[in-house]
Formats: sequence, C-alpha cells, structure tokens
Amino acid sequence: MSAWGLYLALVHHPVRDRAGGIITTSVTNLDVHDLARTARTYELRRYFLVTPVEAQQALVRHLLGHWNGGPGGERVPERAEALSRVTVVPTLDAACAEVLALEGAAPACWTTAARGGFPVTEFSTARALLAAREGPVVLVLGTGHGLADAVIARASVHLAPVRPGGYNHLPVRAAAAIILDRLLGDEA
Amino acid sequence: MSAWGLYLALVHHPVRDRAGGIITTSVTNLDVHDLARTARTYELRRYFLVTPVEAQQALVRHLLGHWNGGPGGERVPERAEALSRVTVVPTLDAACAEVLALEGAAPACWTTAARGGFPVTEFSTARALLAAREGPVVLVLGTGHGLADAVIARASVHLAPVRPGGYNHLPVRAAAAIILDRLLGDEA
Repeated sequence: MSAWGLYLALVHHPVRDRAGGIITTSVTNLDVHDLARTARTYELRRYFLVTPVEAQQALVRHLLGHWNGGPGGERVPERAEALSRVTVVPTLDAACAEVLALEGAAPACWTTAARGGFPVTEFSTARALLAAREGPVVLVLGTGHGLADAVIARASVHLAPVRPGGYNHLPVRAAAAIILDRLLGDEA
Repeated sequence: MSAWGLYLALVHHPVRDRAGGIITTSVTNLDVHDLARTARTYELRRYFLVTPVEAQQALVRHLLGHWNGGPGGERVPERAEALSRVTVVPTLDAACAEVLALEGAAPACWTTAARGGFPVTEFSTARALLAAREGPVVLVLGTGHGLADAVIARASVHLAPVRPGGYNHLPVRAAAAIILDRLLGDEA
C-alpha cells in the first residue's frame, strides 16, 4: 500500500444538467453520510464536499458539528468516525491545496463519468496505478449529470464507466462504492 | 448467463436493532430509489421492498405511482425504468411466492451480513454459483443493524462480509452496489 493518501471529492459545481449546461447542485445530507461511510470503509484520508455556495457550506458544517463533538457522535460513534473525515471546500482547487498542505505534494486528480467521449483507464490498470502511486490522489465525482468538461480535462486518469454500454444511471453513492471496491477491495 | 432470474429483497422486518432486539424499520424513499437504480443497472428482475406495515406499503405504492405512469416518469424516464421493477410485499415469503409464480420454481435465498458468526461463501465462489444457478435467487439485504437470525437461517448461501475485519458500517445502498458488482460486474 502506498504511503500517499487517497481522497474523495464530490463536486457540486461545475457540473452538468440534463441538457449539458453548467449548474450548481445542492448538497444533500445523504451524500454527506453515505460517501463518508464508504470513504471510511476504504480508509480514504478525507472526503471533500465541493460547493461554492456559502449557505450550503455553513449547513454542512452545522450538520458535521452534530456528529463531531456533538450529540450524534455520542449516540453513534461509528458514524462520527466516518464524518470526522469530511471537509467542506469552495472549489476543487481548495481541496487540492488542502491535500498539498497535508502531504507536501500536490495530488493527481482522477475523474470518472458514466458518459463516454473521453479516453479511459480500465479498472485493472487503475488499481495497479493506484497501488504504485508516487503522490496523493483525489478521486473526483460529480453530482447532477456529471462533471463539467473543464474538471475532466485536468484529470490525469479518467476511469472507465462502471457499466459500459448498459443502463448508466447509478446513484453517485452506488458508483462511489463500486469504484472504491474495484480500486481497493480485497476480493477479485 | 443463467436463464433464471436474480432478485433483490430489502427487509424492514424482522431486523435487528443496535442491541440485537427484533424491530421493524421504516421504509425510506432513498432506499427505494437507490436500490432500484442499482438493481436496474445489474439487470435484476425485481426489487422487493419487504415491510409488514400497511401504511408504509401504501406510501411506497403512492410513490411508485408518481414514476410508473405518473408525472415523474414522463420527466425522468430512466428513473421510471428503474422503479418499474419495484414491488412492495409484506413478508419475505410473499416475495418468494411472487418469484415462484413468475418463474415456476421457488427461489433460493442468499443473505449477507456485516456481522460475523455464520459460515460464509466467498464472493469468487458465489459468483460462479450464481452464474451456474439452476433456479431463481433472491439476494436478501437487511436494514437497521442487519437481518434477524431467523432470516439468515433460511438462506442457502451466506455471502462473506464486504470488508472482513474492517469498519463495518457501509450504508445498505453502498453494500448492495458492491455486492452486485462483485457477483455480476464485468471488471475483475
């Protein structure tokens, strides 16, 4: 296992709407909890919620306070353990800056998208690349109808779709779980 | 691929609470949608929501009506496609009876649990068993703190925990996605 960390970022802007326009989606409590638990399961170092909307940043911090040092964490400590890894940031750049500060090296960005049109790296290759990584990696997931092209363009690895050619409407919560399991799970 | 169907059942009763007592959990809209989309992605035939609470059965049927033939389905057809596979039943027996009626053979039940204490089948073995199955299979997932022992006892296959020895608090939505991908996904 590499000494360099793996991170997760869930991007709420810039993402696409159904027609391909660039929008900002709302943070959902569900995505905070589900992805935090999945990130904890696969031992990721942090899970960044990326939203430029200050009111939503404040909402998430309030929610996290309920678990980190608040009454929720006393009642369900394993939930607090997951949520202690969550950080809200305004941009993907801010997430990358935080990783740089933590690890002393700028991270590579890996993206994934259900839609095609990009050269992709198959999971078996990506798993080997990740195991041998020589710096931190941020796995970047989109909300809405997927990451804006500008985000995908900055990635060094673009993961293959989970189900190429099939029904392409997995919840991001399910996609994240499958992707992390394929990259890090014990089972073949 | 076997001609026999694979089904998913999400059980809200009988399941365990934190202390091991037997309870009935509430159906959540989220579990309806997320697991329906995941079930559709992996081409399962039906997804059974198992709850004995008639008011909750009615709520789910109302919700499904919004998508199946209702305004939601017109707006987001791929969501309707997923939700058209959802059926609400009062018991796991009722789900099995429906499979028997559909396929002309009673299904085997496969269970999974994060907690240990049962002889388990590893995923590589389960994947081969599934591919060669000679009858329908219902994959049974629990809510709350997991399936009651009485449900587990009737299963012919008990899948290994997703992360043995690790943090064992994946959302059922994530666990279902990982399990189906391990059993049916294209990637090794």
